[in-house]
Amino acid sequence: MASNYKSIIENGYNLAKSLKDEGKIATYIPELANVDPSMFGVHMTKNDGTDFGIGNYKEKFSIQSIAKVLSLTLAIKTIGEKVWNRIDVEPSGTKFDSLLLLESYKGIPRNPFINSGAIVICDILITHLDNAPKDFLAFVRNLSDLPTLSYSDKIADSEKATGYRNVALCNFIKSFGNIKNDPAVVLDFYFDMCSLEMNCQQLSYTFSFLANGGRKLSNGEKIITNSQSKRINALMLTCGFYDESGEFAFKVGLPGKSGVGGGIVALYPHNYTIAVWSPKLNPNGNSFRGMKLLEEVTTHSELSIF
Amino acid sequence: MASNYKSIIENGYNLAKSLKDEGKIATYIPELANVDPSMFGVHMTKNDGTDFGIGNYKEKFSIQSIAKVLSLTLAIKTIGEKVWNRIDVEPSGTKFDSLLLLESYKGIPRNPFINSGAIVICDILITHLDNAPKDFLAFVRNLSDLPTLSYSDKIADSEKATGYRNVALCNFIKSFGNIKNDPAVVLDFYFDMCSLEMNCQQLSYTFSFLANGGRKLSNGEKIITNSQSKRINALMLTCGFYDESGEFAFKVGLPGKSGVGGGIVALYPHNYTIAVWSPKLNPNGNSFRGMKLLEEVTTHSELSIF
Amino acid sequence: MASNYKSIIENGYNLAKSLKDEGKIATYIPELANVDPSMFGVHMTKNDGTDFGIGNYKEKFSIQSIAKVLSLTLAIKTIGEKVWNRIDVEPSGTKFDSLLLLESYKGIPRNPFINSGAIVICDILITHLDNAPKDFLAFVRNLSDLPTLSYSDKIADSEKATGYRNVALCNFIKSFGNIKNDPAVVLDFYFDMCSLEMNCQQLSYTFSFLANGGRKLSNGEKIITNSQSKRINALMLTCGFYDESGEFAFKVGLPGKSGVGGGIVALYPHNYTIAVWSPKLNPNGNSFRGMKLLEEVTTHSELSIF
Amino acid sequence: MASNYKSIIENGYNLAKSLKDEGKIATYIPELANVDPSMFGVHMTKNDGTDFGIGNYKEKFSIQSIAKVLSLTLAIKTIGEKVWNRIDVEPSGTKFDSLLLLESYKGIPRNPFINSGAIVICDILITHLDNAPKDFLAFVRNLSDLPTLSYSDKIADSEKATGYRNVALCNFIKSFGNIKNDPAVVLDFYFDMCSLEMNCQQLSYTFSFLANGGRKLSNGEKIITNSQSKRINALMLTCGFYDESGEFAFKVGLPGKSGVGGGIVALYPHNYTIAVWSPKLNPNGNSFRGMKLLEEVTTHSELSIF
Repeated sequence: MASNYKSIIENGYNLAKSLKDEGKIATYIPELANVDPSMFGVHMTKNDGTDFGIGNYKEKFSIQSIAKVLSLTLAIKTIGEKVWNRIDVEPSGTKFDSLLLLESYKGIPRNPFINSGAIVICDILITHLDNAPKDFLAFVRNLSDLPTLSYSDKIADSEKATGYRNVALCNFIKSFGNIKNDPAVVLDFYFDMCSLEMNCQQLSYTFSFLANGGRKLSNGEKIITNSQSKRINALMLTCGFYDESGEFAFKVGLPGKSGVGGGIVALYPHNYTIAVWSPKLNPNGNSFRGMKLLEEVTTHSELSIF
Repeated sequence: MASNYKSIIENGYNLAKSLKDEGKIATYIPELANVDPSMFGVHMTKNDGTDFGIGNYKEKFSIQSIAKVLSLTLAIKTIGEKVWNRIDVEPSGTKFDSLLLLESYKGIPRNPFINSGAIVICDILITHLDNAPKDFLAFVRNLSDLPTLSYSDKIADSEKATGYRNVALCNFIKSFGNIKNDPAVVLDFYFDMCSLEMNCQQLSYTFSFLANGGRKLSNGEKIITNSQSKRINALMLTCGFYDESGEFAFKVGLPGKSGVGGGIVALYPHNYTIAVWSPKLNPNGNSFRGMKLLEEVTTHSELSIF
Repeated sequence: MASNYKSIIENGYNLAKSLKDEGKIATYIPELANVDPSMFGVHMTKNDGTDFGIGNYKEKFSIQSIAKVLSLTLAIKTIGEKVWNRIDVEPSGTKFDSLLLLESYKGIPRNPFINSGAIVICDILITHLDNAPKDFLAFVRNLSDLPTLSYSDKIADSEKATGYRNVALCNFIKSFGNIKNDPAVVLDFYFDMCSLEMNCQQLSYTFSFLANGGRKLSNGEKIITNSQSKRINALMLTCGFYDESGEFAFKVGLPGKSGVGGGIVALYPHNYTIAVWSPKLNPNGNSFRGMKLLEEVTTHSELSIF
Repeated sequence: MASNYKSIIENGYNLAKSLKDEGKIATYIPELANVDPSMFGVHMTKNDGTDFGIGNYKEKFSIQSIAKVLSLTLAIKTIGEKVWNRIDVEPSGTKFDSLLLLESYKGIPRNPFINSGAIVICDILITHLDNAPKDFLAFVRNLSDLPTLSYSDKIADSEKATGYRNVALCNFIKSFGNIKNDPAVVLDFYFDMCSLEMNCQQLSYTFSFLANGGRKLSNGEKIITNSQSKRINALMLTCGFYDESGEFAFKVGLPGKSGVGGGIVALYPHNYTIAVWSPKLNPNGNSFRGMKLLEEVTTHSELSIF
């Protein structure tokens, strides 16, 4: 069966690689523009303990918004369902940094994976943890078994210098009272959080607790409850890909999350976690080749939850 | 195992019944207002051929928007993926009959389950079938094994007389060129389609092909391909409950579709199909008790896809 | 002084005529597309009884939305300030047939000069007059001293056959309860009202009561009160040119109203009324040459209210 | 004639004073909440040199947004029509600090009197003047003949500490590239600009150049051209009162500008300038009593431009 998965993914990888890459590298964070656009890797971690990778799966990249799933996990672990008093769980239907819906919904972000929602999650963590940036890092180090993992100052600084729209979002939410701390402090943490770097192997391993009922694969440590894990998976399915979330559910059929660095992580509950990376993005801000690979894999297999 | 399902559902039923029903009956279609608000039934059809029901599961009700899944199925069966040239597959993020997004997206409905999308599906069927109302009815009669099933003139006429917003939607889309036939003809079919009546037992049986890879449970007849079936399930998960779709995925975690008549159908691929009915609706237009029952059932079981 | 006006307008006319006409004829009403695009005329009626015209000022054209000022006048004459219970007096800030704001404002049109507002005015007239189409025609015949003026069936039928967006608007407002009569009847009258034809001379004469405190120039007949006349002028200034209303106030500085037939009427209270016609429209739906002429005239004279 | 004006205004003042003041003091700038809500004053400066005041017309108040007309005037004086490459001249149709339209129009504010537009004006002045805050103050000191006029640090600091929405607006526009300087610097100047304090007498005198073809009443000094003056008046008429601009034009019929401090200035070109102050605001953010007084005055006189 492992060999079966492997050949399906190899076929998907080769097909996606053979396509002309129509995507464009994200340039709005200057530091991201320096990445080699031809990079392409994929790695699968199975719940049975086996794993394998193809291509540049050992090259580190900026996981960007993928980290929002981890900060949400820590927030739920910390204050439980009270998170949902300040953020909704609905797809946004519009661009990932839209202010439109924030205005209609009086400062309540539509979900924790659009920028506004992730900023409110940062605010929650700052309020409830001793030292949110340090504590969040420790949390991810434990999840990933990477004790030296650090924020990338270069990426964080690059985004801080140009992230005017996130400054706008944070202050706009503050004006509705749904940010409790100083916007500058919240944004600093937000930019740090998005600056984490991993390779595909580390990423698929880090997320495997969500395919495993909320427990770490390696030692069974309970990170969150099974029910919380299911709900985070549901959120990834409905909201993980900005305004291409429906398309991803439709074509791939797995819970997942993408980042503008070109990474995507997806998972099949009770089965496996897969991470793919290719820097060039389609018009909706998701990795062009990554989407093609995953679409190919689930179309030609039974690897979808539907 | 069958007994296990049964006791879980009985518990959910009893809990939902014990709650004060905070919902309100839909009154915008006058004929719907005549329903007994205390009705409450549930029925499960399992892929292994067993089935059971509780409460008023043999009382017929107006399935309303639930029929949109069936018309979409027939459209896909008829013209395949070309359906998606005229309708998108994204959650709308706004009220089910909003004109806002239609304006932004130049007459392309966000998905086939909001009214605008279902109206375009009707238009497609009129173009490609000899007699859309008759052929659609024949299609549902076959799916349901109910050879005498008919449109309810009383319901259809009641909605025709008051459905100004649907007239607005259809003409608005026509102004963008995405309705090809006479708006009055398209709307007549649309109101007919929404007027179908079934009971919970019939409804769960009718939808069981979607839990069975696109094939009828009774005789294995292929209605659509396995891949098409998976995609319709994905669409139900992301778009089946208007602007409560994210909430349903989050709390229930199953593909499903609701109607303003108070019916909900949901399914667990390769396992079972469940139909529930209670007429009073929550503020988002979904059955108050139906939602509670399904939430209870999947929270206290492994009956979710996540 | 009369000669002075004349030479200023002649200069404006010649300058506007010398410009390459970058406008485009309105084609969404098929019948309007048959007009000779080179037509260009202007006519001024002064309160002192003198008048003069240049170019094709004796050619009839479809006055279209300009008629909305006359139907508003009749509505105010009929039920007074109660009109404002059902329509607001604010600029819309968006396209003339937008449904966006109608949704936000629960079916209350932003002002009586956008399509939605004019449709509600038609509904008011149908409710309060014996025979709205006939009575409105009689009212305009008296204002214009044109006893044989009639609706153009050709124009009205052409618009009826293609006016899906107006059908959408009318039914959408009906769904909020702000249309009291049958939408089909309201729309018939609306399309008739917009089908009136006049030439520049007739148009400037017809509107001169608004430059004359609400009284007909010829015989002093009181059409509306001085205060009502001032308010209609204010509305023309703030809302007369769709989403170019601010631009017109800014550059021309006179109350006025345009139509997609290429006509514009404007007036300087207590002084004069001017009508100009040239069929090709700028991207905002207002006559390209007409706007240039009026801008030129008020920039090089003291002929603005500011 | 002077006595005539006076008695009309006295009547308006007395009537507005006799009404129950349904307004509410602005509290979002904490310092403004300390004002005595019973204050009510009015002052008229006529072009013929005469003037008079009633009530608390010698009490200073925070003129707030009224200052936006003065910063616009200085921007036009400095770079002329190039201002309009970065700001539009259309009414916004929505709340004064809405981000909705900014998003549709890619960072181009709808007009210079909503917050976003005034912030862009500040940015323009910073770019083109040696020291914008100092130079703007000098400009207003000359206009007002108040050589010791200063910014109110107390008001500016109070707004800086709570003005999250303006921070959001400024950074949002910056994200579209329509702010050229550091957002923090632009906002500092913006808050300073809005902190100016005058009494009704000073305010009506300061604005009288706009009723006088762009020239100071006292010495005929040319501030801007006659044509520029007319256009600023047109802008005040269409955009001076947030989303009550149409209502003000409709009921009062004069160019004017309001501030959340409860001040309003209005003018009749070639005739007079009037300033009124009463701190309690109606739901649209304009002085309740001030609006009533002006409405009364123009309804019972010929003092409207229409």
